Amino acid sequence: MLVSPFTPKGMRAVDLIRKKRDSGEHTREEIAYLVAGYTKGEIPDYQMAAWLMAAWIRGLTRAETIALTEMMLYSGEIVDHFDVPVQKVDKHSTGGVGDKTSLILAPIVAAGGLAVPMISGRGLGHTGGTLDKLEAIPGFNTALSLAEFRRVLKECGLALIGQTAEIAPADKKIYALRDATSTVESVSLICASIMSKKLAEGIDALVLDVKTGSGAFMADAEDAVRLAEIMVDTARRMGKKCVALLTGMDQPLGRMAGHSNEVIEAIDILKGKGPGDLRELSVELSAWMFYLGERTTSVVEGRNLAEQMIVSGKALDRLRQCIRLQGGDAGVIENPSLMPGAKYRSDVFSAKSGYICGTHCRDFGVALAILEGGRNTKEDRIDHGVGLEFHKRIGDRVTSGEKLVTIQYNSGARLAEAKKLIEDSFVFGDEAPLMPPLIRQVIGG
Amino acid sequence: MLVSPFTPKGMRAVDLIRKKRDSGEHTREEIAYLVAGYTKGEIPDYQMAAWLMAAWIRGLTRAETIALTEMMLYSGEIVDHFDVPVQKVDKHSTGGVGDKTSLILAPIVAAGGLAVPMISGRGLGHTGGTLDKLEAIPGFNTALSLAEFRRVLKECGLALIGQTAEIAPADKKIYALRDATSTVESVSLICASIMSKKLAEGIDALVLDVKTGSGAFMADAEDAVRLAEIMVDTARRMGKKCVALLTGMDQPLGRMAGHSNEVIEAIDILKGKGPGDLRELSVELSAWMFYLGERTTSVVEGRNLAEQMIVSGKALDRLRQCIRLQGGDAGVIENPSLMPGAKYRSDVFSAKSGYICGTHCRDFGVALAILEGGRNTKEDRIDHGVGLEFHKRIGDRVTSGEKLVTIQYNSGARLAEAKKLIEDSFVFGDEAPLMPPLIRQVIGG
Repeated sequence: MLVSPFTPKGMRAVDLIRKKRDSGEHTREEIAYLVAGYTKGEIPDYQMAAWLMAAWIRGLTRAETIALTEMMLYSGEIVDHFDVPVQKVDKHSTGGVGDKTSLILAPIVAAGGLAVPMISGRGLGHTGGTLDKLEAIPGFNTALSLAEFRRVLKECGLALIGQTAEIAPADKKIYALRDATSTVESVSLICASIMSKKLAEGIDALVLDVKTGSGAFMADAEDAVRLAEIMVDTARRMGKKCVALLTGMDQPLGRMAGHSNEVIEAIDILKGKGPGDLRELSVELSAWMFYLGERTTSVVEGRNLAEQMIVSGKALDRLRQCIRLQGGDAGVIENPSLMPGAKYRSDVFSAKSGYICGTHCRDFGVALAILEGGRNTKEDRIDHGVGLEFHKRIGDRVTSGEKLVTIQYNSGARLAEAKKLIEDSFVFGDEAPLMPPLIRQVIGG
Repeated sequence: MLVSPFTPKGMRAVDLIRKKRDSGEHTREEIAYLVAGYTKGEIPDYQMAAWLMAAWIRGLTRAETIALTEMMLYSGEIVDHFDVPVQKVDKHSTGGVGDKTSLILAPIVAAGGLAVPMISGRGLGHTGGTLDKLEAIPGFNTALSLAEFRRVLKECGLALIGQTAEIAPADKKIYALRDATSTVESVSLICASIMSKKLAEGIDALVLDVKTGSGAFMADAEDAVRLAEIMVDTARRMGKKCVALLTGMDQPLGRMAGHSNEVIEAIDILKGKGPGDLRELSVELSAWMFYLGERTTSVVEGRNLAEQMIVSGKALDRLRQCIRLQGGDAGVIENPSLMPGAKYRSDVFSAKSGYICGTHCRDFGVALAILEGGRNTKEDRIDHGVGLEFHKRIGDRVTSGEKLVTIQYNSGARLAEAKKLIEDSFVFGDEAPLMPPLIRQVIGG
């Protein structure tokens, strides 16, 4: 726990709350006092809650955001991979529906010669989480100690775990409070939360995948750009290489959403199969990781290297190795039915004819959660076998009665509700829509 | 505890926090849910703290303020003086330095034929509190039960106590939280806090003394007017007659500030002696109480009645009776030295010559607290014998070396600091200042 030697004696939380309430700017020492005091339990929940609401409404400056990130990072351990001689790189996505790129790019980048020490989260609400997807693999242990994490990374170049007690404990405590006090959606608070965890991984470079569109956490493009900018700036001021890709989440990424079925789709990509949009984004993110990690001298070269790792089967080998090292059954690569599956299938047919012009993408994630393939609260258990398979995408011409989505489910209790939500999530028009590119913008590139 | 039958099932604090954060307006049911839930402990401190900060920054509408007041009032008991056949009236002041009008007007109004069931507070920071002043009288018990309170009122027409556990428990809990989270100075939250307690007294009418100027809680005149308006409106919508007098607190009221010495000054007024400004305001507030309580048909008549009650000695008799009924030593009326006094005296002399144009009135209260004659925190004990005597007022011409203030003290530990603060509190000019009237405005009159 960092307590700055510059913390003036007699600093009081109530005065700092007042300062932020009145739109004042905190010093680094004040931010340090708040974070350290709260993490140690010296500042009670109710004072932190009042400060968070003031910070949410009044905003934090760039300098305050960086200080907050830093103090949250220093509230815990920073992993030191001293015995891994290559550059350590990672990717973080702000989340969406069907986003399984981590499962693809981590083995690609490891196979390409860099190390990927990835600490991921769980899904909540309409978004999925990498940890949950990995746990569809029988035996896969995402709860490694930091020592085991370092060992797996050293051995196979990638390691995939969840946040441990040692990593940014301030974030864990503050995030739980934000969740209960409606202070989540703040660009600065999100930045500090994400970056304090990511920078604790002991990385040299970070590629951010900031989603925008109807299925993104921040649907508004301007907010997404602001978040991307502040995260890139924060990482750089803390000595890390960083870029952010602003990418579309107007529809699910790939053809699958769920857990077992997303693992299958990721494996398909590594086998050289699988849908174009998912492959395109996975390769692009890998390419930036290679470039920032100084494995290639350009992003174009990075793309080529990523493609080679897929085509040669080397990436798939790395994934197999990682699954084994983390206690999982690597047989799933050849035999997907080893993972939890769905007893039933039900198709959603289109009631309309026309071009699909867009989707209420978030609602696909909500439908998945309704079918027990997602979480409404952190305590919910997930049915890893539940999934959605999308047969149509934006730009497709559909005739009334055509199949839009196949639902894979085990409990039909709320099937009708989910089907209705899915059907209503497709937006039709008379003309083929203008298709925005999947990768909209590179921030800090 | 009121739980509205209209409270929709599934209402959640986190959603109401979000609504206020996003500048939404709450329904009465939502306010009821928040107040009842918090008072019962179902809504935790941290959620209420976040809501309070959102309410502080975004503001509450008139309708929300009235609903909040009402729900806080209904969180506890409302005293019913069914056996007191006359109208019940009270006064509330937003507080200042040297404001002892309650000790004067309560006996005046009781002697004039109305009943004054007064529930008062303690001093905090630079402002004094009626309860603390009363406790300078040996034996005076301000902690009566509600049954005793009603009995004393019935017998002598006035009763002076502190807030009991039965009165607006929601306010007690919310106020403590506001104090710790810098959410005190909000017109709506102040209104709800004051009015929920005052309306629990079982009164028919209320006169508000809203202070403005350098010694007031709300120094800004516009804020004071807004507070006055919303309080008057709230009282009326709840079926009570109410006016607010906006009065000056640019300098201490009367010549004395402290505890024993303020009781002495109040008794002096009731003996027909004592300084003009204090007598003027006490008579004016009494007059409005007589008028709203339908004892007189005009405020002018009310003034005459108040003067008669002083001149005839009837008001003083009522005070004597009340002191006895509440266990106090009524001998203090003839022999003030029965109250705690000060061992030492020290004079503050003017270093400058000129006209006194104004004062940093709040600092006189701070100086008093430094000398242990006030509270910095709720737990502080008060030295009732400590006091300030003011020899000069705004408009007076002063020559360098003249006596400005006499300090009465027991512990000299911080005397120099207090003297400096007092000396610096006087603002001098070359010309006689324009004197604003003590009573600036009547709101709702």
